[in-house]
Formats: sequence, C-alpha cells, structure tokens
Amino acid sequence: MRGVGCEIGDNDMKRREYSFKQIGIIHTPHRAASETPVQPVFAKEIRGTVEVFPEYIDAMRDLDGFSYIYLFYYFDRTTQTRLKVKPYLDDKIRGVFATRAPHRPNKIGMSVVRLLRMRKNIIEVEDIDILDGTPLLDIKPYIARFDVRRPVRSGWQDDICDDIAGRRGRRDYKKEK
Amino acid sequence: MRGVGCEIGDNDMKRREYSFKQIGIIHTPHRAASETPVQPVFAKEIRGTVEVFPEYIDAMRDLDGFSYIYLFYYFDRTTQTRLKVKPYLDDKIRGVFATRAPHRPNKIGMSVVRLLRMRKNIIEVEDIDILDGTPLLDIKPYIARFDVRRPVRSGWQDDICDDIAGRRGRRDYKKEK
Repeated sequence: MRGVGCEIGDNDMKRREYSFKQIGIIHTPHRAASETPVQPVFAKEIRGTVEVFPEYIDAMRDLDGFSYIYLFYYFDRTTQTRLKVKPYLDDKIRGVFATRAPHRPNKIGMSVVRLLRMRKNIIEVEDIDILDGTPLLDIKPYIARFDVRRPVRSGWQDDICDDIAGRRGRRDYKKEK
Repeated sequence: MRGVGCEIGDNDMKRREYSFKQIGIIHTPHRAASETPVQPVFAKEIRGTVEVFPEYIDAMRDLDGFSYIYLFYYFDRTTQTRLKVKPYLDDKIRGVFATRAPHRPNKIGMSVVRLLRMRKNIIEVEDIDILDGTPLLDIKPYIARFDVRRPVRSGWQDDICDDIAGRRGRRDYKKEK
C-alpha cells in the first residue's frame, strides 16, 4: 500500500491539502446567483470573456482550434458545504456528488463553454453559466474522442423532462437585463 | 468591477489561492506513469476502486444511478509546471491548456470513468487512466443532457488518426502486469 493510502476506517490516515492559485477571471453578465443558469445548456448564446492572467499566455497556444473548452473555476460565493442538497432541477434531496451543485467539499466548478475567438489573453465564449468575477483555475480542451460518451443512465436526471429542466435550469435569467 | 476583478496588465491585481482537501484515494493497477494510459478511452476495461473517506458517504447517495462519473484529482506525482508541452499523442509543442497533460499551473486531473457498482464508501470503476494512490478531490455525475456536445473542431486532435491515438494513448500499459 502506498504512502498516501489508507484502510477504510483508519482514523490515522493522512488527509492532504493542495493549494490552487487563481490563473484568471471570468467575466459574465451574471451578477446574482438566483438569475444565473445552472448549466451551459441552459445559457444558450449568453456571452462572456475569460481573462487569463498574462503570465499564462503561452499555455493558451492552439486552444482556438477547439469548438468547446472546459473552464474550471472556484465557486467563490458559495460559503456552505452540504453533503446532501436539493438540486435546482429536482425536488428531492440528493448526495452532492450526484449533482453539480456548488456546495461541495471542494468547490471546484466546471463548465463546457463554446469558444468563439481568442485575442491575446482574452477568450470570448458563449453559453456561460458562471457568476461574474469568478476565479479561473484551469482550462482544458473538449475533445470529441475523449469526452463524448453514451451513458445508458444519467441517474435522477433521467426523470426530469427537457421542458422542466429548461425552465428550471435557466432560473431567473432575463435576457433584457 | 468586483473585488477580485482586475484590468489586463495591472500588476497590482490580486491573485488568490484556494486550498482543496483530499476527500479520498484512487486505487488502480497503474504504478508507473510511463505505463499508464493517457485517457479513459485508452484504458478500456481496466478496473480500479475509488475510496471516498467515510465522512463523505452521505454525498455519494444517488451516484450509482449514473453510467459514468467524473473523477477530479490531484496530479500528485507531477512536479513540473510547463506552459508548453509535447502531448503524448502528438509530436508538436502545444500550449498546455490545449492539452490534457498533467504539467499545468494547477494540477487538476479529470477522468470520465464507467461506474460499475458502489458498496458503502467504495466505488468500483472501469476505464481508469489514473496512477495508483492519486488523491481524490471531487466527483460529479456525467449527465448526457449537459455533457454530450457535438464539437465541430477538436483542434490538433483532429489531425491524429484513431490508430495512432490508440497506440500512443495506451503508452506502455501491459495487460498481463
């Protein structure tokens, strides 16, 4: 067994911590959580910009060849951690790992957004469901060969019809804002 | 502009750091990076277990309804950060954000693995491309409605044919090990 491994129930197991630094900032029209769509699919055509801090500009090379990118960010306005949550799209209590809710033990957010264009350290994106000012942690390309799966089951989400998902998923977002 | 916002080129901008804690440990047959497939699609049928620390067991509820889950983890055996890398599948230098290489400014790893079954705080998974003993940071469900996209372009990956990707993507993994 490796150094960081542990037996179940072993109270002496070592729990490590890892420090991640902000590498940029996400600018969007979403100023209030209650008016922010809960997923990119419910945020169609909403545009935003990802500002990568200039010292990381070399890491952005070749990114503009991809139609979609993953943004990884920190849910900086979520203060609580809850192991059980009521998802926005559902009325039943679910384990937080079975949801995309922000109240997670580690507040890592992930969104797949459409890349429109890049200029220097700025990426223009569409379908953005992220609060304005959110700290960026990482960017990865969405690669068809790796990321398109055919899940037989999407758990409790399979019981939510598209109409209801669309209505609840947009939350109180108003285009005219 | 929000508190954490900044102007491009403003050297006084505030770069924050965020601490993430290990919430579990990933057990796999992969003991050496050079023999570890670079993506789950190149790790077909390779099994592993995800051990979630017992205090998070409530967060796992309902997760077993999903065919695939995302594992988020820390690349704990990657010491270097490189903004430009030569991907395993390619011979050209690329920006690290246009790749899934581990040498990123924040060493967040992500894999979409097949969920086989759960018992208590243990998740049995398949298609695992992660080094044994890797610290787990988060789990999210793979949800068809959110995560299946139809990218027109997958950048430089579009120039790599499936045969070469499969051969190079498996690296030196040997089934008999």
